[in-house]
Formats: sequence, C-alpha cells, structure tokens
Amino acid sequence: MQDAQLEQLARETGRRLEKHQLFMVTAESCTGGWIAKVMTDIPGSSGWFEGGFVTYSNQAKMDMLGVRPDTLDQFGAVSEQVVLQMATGALANSRADVSVAVSGVAGPGGGTPDKPVGTVWFAWGNQSGIRAERCWFPGNREQVRRQTVIHALDVLGKSLGE
Amino acid sequence: MQDAQLEQLARETGRRLEKHQLFMVTAESCTGGWIAKVMTDIPGSSGWFEGGFVTYSNQAKMDMLGVRPDTLDQFGAVSEQVVLQMATGALANSRADVSVAVSGVAGPGGGTPDKPVGTVWFAWGNQSGIRAERCWFPGNREQVRRQTVIHALDVLGKSLGE
Repeated sequence: MQDAQLEQLARETGRRLEKHQLFMVTAESCTGGWIAKVMTDIPGSSGWFEGGFVTYSNQAKMDMLGVRPDTLDQFGAVSEQVVLQMATGALANSRADVSVAVSGVAGPGGGTPDKPVGTVWFAWGNQSGIRAERCWFPGNREQVRRQTVIHALDVLGKSLGE
Repeated sequence: MQDAQLEQLARETGRRLEKHQLFMVTAESCTGGWIAKVMTDIPGSSGWFEGGFVTYSNQAKMDMLGVRPDTLDQFGAVSEQVVLQMATGALANSRADVSVAVSGVAGPGGGTPDKPVGTVWFAWGNQSGIRAERCWFPGNREQVRRQTVIHALDVLGKSLGE
C-alpha cells in the first residue's frame, strides 16, 4: 500500500459500508479504475465491494452503463447529466446498493475554456436518489486523478453516515 | 506516477495497441481495477483503452460479463474456465478488439490447498482466440496484486507483436 491517505479513506469508507451492510459499485471515466483499485487494496473488501465499470470511451459509457447517446452529444462526457446516468447505470447493471461515478478532464489534453483540465463531475447515491457535484482540481494528470479518487471516496463515505 | 516498472509496461503495451490500431478492455477480479488504472495513467490512453470491468463478486462476474453460474459452482472463480469466460465476456460486452482477464487469490484469506494465496489465472486474446495461463506469485496481498498487473500487461503486450 503506497499511499497512506488513500488507504485511510478506503478503510473508513469500507468500515461504513460494512456497518450498514451495503455493497458499492463504481463507474469511472477519468480515474480509470483507480477508485476500485484503492477500495480493493483493503483485505476483506469482498464484504462490501461488488464491482466497477471503467467506462473510458463514450461508447463504453453507452455499452456498459446505458448512458444515452443524445445526452453525450448534447452535454459532453464531462457533465452533470452524463455522470448522473453513469451512477444510475452502475446500480442498474449490478446488485450493488450504492454507487459513485466520476467523469472529468484529467489532462494534459482535452481541456476547453468551458471545461478546463481539472474539471470533474461526481455523482453518488442509491436507488432512492443520486446527487451530483462539480469540482475543479489543480495540478497535472496524476494530481487531478488522485484528488478525484480522494473526493469520490470522501463524498461516498459521508453519504453513508457514521 | 509512482511506479516506474508499471509505467514502462503500460507505455509499451499502449504503444503496441496504438501501432496496431487496437482497443483493449480489462476484466479484473483480484486486481480490482489496477490494470485499468495503470493503463489510463498514460496520457493519450483514450486512443487505445476502451474500458474495463471490475468483477469482484461472483455475482458481478455473471451480471457484467455473462460468466455462467454452473461454471462458477463447478470450478470456482479462480479457474481456467471462469477466466476464459471473463475474457470472452469483456469482448462481447464492449467494442474492444483485445481483452485481458485475471482471477486469483490475493490473500490474506481465501487460500485453499488446491488454490493457495498467490494463485492467479490469466486469459487474454481476441475474437479469434483466447489463451489462458495459471501463475503462482509469492508475497503479501499488495505483492500478489502487483505481480498480477505486471504479468497481465506483459502477456497482453507480447500477444500483440512488436
């Protein structure tokens, strides 16, 4: 385990999932599986980690999560609408109880004036409701991705309650 | 990028995918998304990385990849039969050209005399054929998972040719 901060966050989120007897699923674009990796670093994660979707291409977002092509066309992959559909699709395509989804511009390319490098949309929730939030993180590709993992685990963990 | 060996392997595999204009998909159990994470660490990975399935539970292997319940019952999740179905299912459920799948016992729990901790099955290939191989890796959970990522990228990369 190379990263004490990520490990601590993953352990805390895992503890809350276990306490509430919930299983989680991930839907990751810009982090490319890193959230799932960090959660499954934890021994015993099979008690609360169901699985994850790494939907890197737009096509994968449609094929694996049922994101609608017109939503991608109209709003782009890095948008509230798409990340909400990703979180919903991850729940619909697994037996998990809670999901967290991320879609962002990790860089170095891909930034626009509207959505500069570091822009990330998050969505998380359960069958009763999904919330979304946008963040902007400074730094290079590695730093943007790392902060995205941290924030995703943080919001998911907090949403589960103590 | 914390890990020079993983980065180098990912860059080399990415180079070969790009050269042959192929997209890859992952199907990961014991590595929990680490293979996908390492590949998408590379800037420009959207040119050859389609997506990935993190099928941590048996249910996820069935739901996301179409692994057959009777195969899981008969041979267990860490088996040639299941990892072949994972690699095939990842191709069937995405637009990728090549896939790599891993299923193993990362530990610390879950080992049996037949399948001790460190036992990992790999499968990789394309629509024309999938190969499978079993390895045994020494070490703790982190070390077993890391060696699994390395071997998966190595066999996939070599299968693509220079």
